[in-house]
Amino acid sequence: ADTGAMAAARTRQAQLTKPLGALGDLEDISVRLAGVFGSDRPHPHGVAVLVAAGDHGVAAGPHPVSAYPPEVTPAMVANFLADTPAGLGGAAVNAIARSVGARVYVMDAGVNADLPPHPALVRAADLGAGGRRGTSDLRTGAAMSRDEAEALILAGAALARQAVQDGTDLIVPGEMGIGNTTPAAALTARLLGQDAAAVTGRGTGVDDATLERKVAAVRAALARGGSDPADPLGVLADLGGFEIAAMLGMMLQAAALGRAVILDGFVEGSAALLGVALAPALADFLFAAGECAEVGHAAQLAHLNLKPMFRLGLRLGEGTGGVLAAPMLLAAAATLREMQTFAEAGVPGGGA
Amino acid sequence: ADTGAMAAARTRQAQLTKPLGALGDLEDISVRLAGVFGSDRPHPHGVAVLVAAGDHGVAAGPHPVSAYPPEVTPAMVANFLADTPAGLGGAAVNAIARSVGARVYVMDAGVNADLPPHPALVRAADLGAGGRRGTSDLRTGAAMSRDEAEALILAGAALARQAVQDGTDLIVPGEMGIGNTTPAAALTARLLGQDAAAVTGRGTGVDDATLERKVAAVRAALARGGSDPADPLGVLADLGGFEIAAMLGMMLQAAALGRAVILDGFVEGSAALLGVALAPALADFLFAAGECAEVGHAAQLAHLNLKPMFRLGLRLGEGTGGVLAAPMLLAAAATLREMQTFAEAGVPGGGA
Repeated sequence: ADTGAMAAARTRQAQLTKPLGALGDLEDISVRLAGVFGSDRPHPHGVAVLVAAGDHGVAAGPHPVSAYPPEVTPAMVANFLADTPAGLGGAAVNAIARSVGARVYVMDAGVNADLPPHPALVRAADLGAGGRRGTSDLRTGAAMSRDEAEALILAGAALARQAVQDGTDLIVPGEMGIGNTTPAAALTARLLGQDAAAVTGRGTGVDDATLERKVAAVRAALARGGSDPADPLGVLADLGGFEIAAMLGMMLQAAALGRAVILDGFVEGSAALLGVALAPALADFLFAAGECAEVGHAAQLAHLNLKPMFRLGLRLGEGTGGVLAAPMLLAAAATLREMQTFAEAGVPGGGA
Repeated sequence: ADTGAMAAARTRQAQLTKPLGALGDLEDISVRLAGVFGSDRPHPHGVAVLVAAGDHGVAAGPHPVSAYPPEVTPAMVANFLADTPAGLGGAAVNAIARSVGARVYVMDAGVNADLPPHPALVRAADLGAGGRRGTSDLRTGAAMSRDEAEALILAGAALARQAVQDGTDLIVPGEMGIGNTTPAAALTARLLGQDAAAVTGRGTGVDDATLERKVAAVRAALARGGSDPADPLGVLADLGGFEIAAMLGMMLQAAALGRAVILDGFVEGSAALLGVALAPALADFLFAAGECAEVGHAAQLAHLNLKPMFRLGLRLGEGTGGVLAAPMLLAAAATLREMQTFAEAGVPGGGA
């Protein structure tokens, strides 16, 4: 981040026509945006949510870790792309994105179905990633190979580049993948050195028995000892998911191109933990949306040193919370860019 | 509110393509919007912030209750109306309103200055209100007469009608008035039966000595015994402010016209307390933005039975927090209106 622009932005916030600090956390957000966009008058424009979908070996079979069957993953991808009276897509992320003027991109990062071609569907397989239909079951072995992980990161990065070329300044990585809070919990436990139970939550809303199975799955995955936190790519391959790898690539690419990343929930947070482990400077480009309802999200945000903007009890994923937070970032930047100083406005008391 | 539409909306939320309750508080907000707009597919459009400005007798003189001198009130009105490179107005509310596409209305509800004419400035005096330049000092007598209070309520209502005629569905009352957290605290203390110290905060950021004077001012005002909580108009006249009376009128009129009201902070909250005391049905039309930093705001929201959407430490007023919350209300309505049901989308698991 541009520390000179941040210092100038902080000075400017103190001169704008309001009591010092009266815009609360919006002031810190505006200063961080100044750092991302290299100006004490940042002017971010387009918002886009990039929804990666993937299936998970751990979700298949007779002992589910989710309240929903794996068939929901491709069905929701179809829903993201559905032709509805309101426009493209009938899922929550589509509706919320339309309401804030955000563009939606959808990526098949490894869904267990033949998805029909659609102009708005990007296939990771077409971007050089293997295109396997779901990860292996992390309870019994690595979720994917290191090569697969790297290819999915690059595919996510390619989609982020496309979004930036299309005019996006605020990038919201999003995800869909039945079972994906289980790998997210395993990643979080390993990277933060936490116990499985402390970071494994109810996801889509599982009952007590399923939650117990989820915790057991995370424990089994960790007990294999297949990866070392000092090797984040190894941890991703061992315990991750294809859509998580793709989101990691989106984040790294967005930051490298000087764009801001808005983090939605727990699965996005697990990708961010991998990201800052690989490239600590990524942290400067990350903005937390809300604190989601999933156990473990607070620990992720604390590690990332991010303060959530709201606490609405969201637990949907898809990037919904991130899209909802975009207007707050745009507003924070607008105060820095468009407010008059005490001197400009002729308001007394600026020295107070 | 339309309870039939609310019931239909609640049923519909349970059928939309997401785990039940996964949109958290947004689901409740969407159901309440269904009640306001009389449809289980509410489609609110325009957002406007109506900023009323007034001066306060308690803020004048050698023993200030604010960190800023009263001259800041007219200077900030000029700032709301300033011609800037970004457009109309150089205050925080202008910048945030532009960023979310909200219109700004400015009302002189009783400012202690000759404000030059401006096409975007509405004078309460031109709408039948007395146009006194600031209230009397509530420490020593009633802030205003009952006639003045009623005239300002009607002036606020007239401005709200204008905004609705201009296409506004979401109305954000806002305020500017150096010293106005003191009358807001006095109103809150009387209406909620609280001690002065429990609801009197630092406003613009006063030091300990000034806070002590503020609490003493509220105590003195209450000790006069000039009003009875059973007579809300009497309480307003005794302890209120011109801009608070105007905001009360905006709220009552917006609700009567079937529009939603978004509440910003503590001063707006004091007007809302008067509003529900006068007309309990108003509560159905109120939506809390964030919990602001001012002591006593939480007690107001608890009494209004409203849950804040965020907690960003805002303490500016002007309606800034309310404008910032508008995209969340629009998004909540969009989910109800535009998402597909499990059946429509062909997604398995809708019965879960």
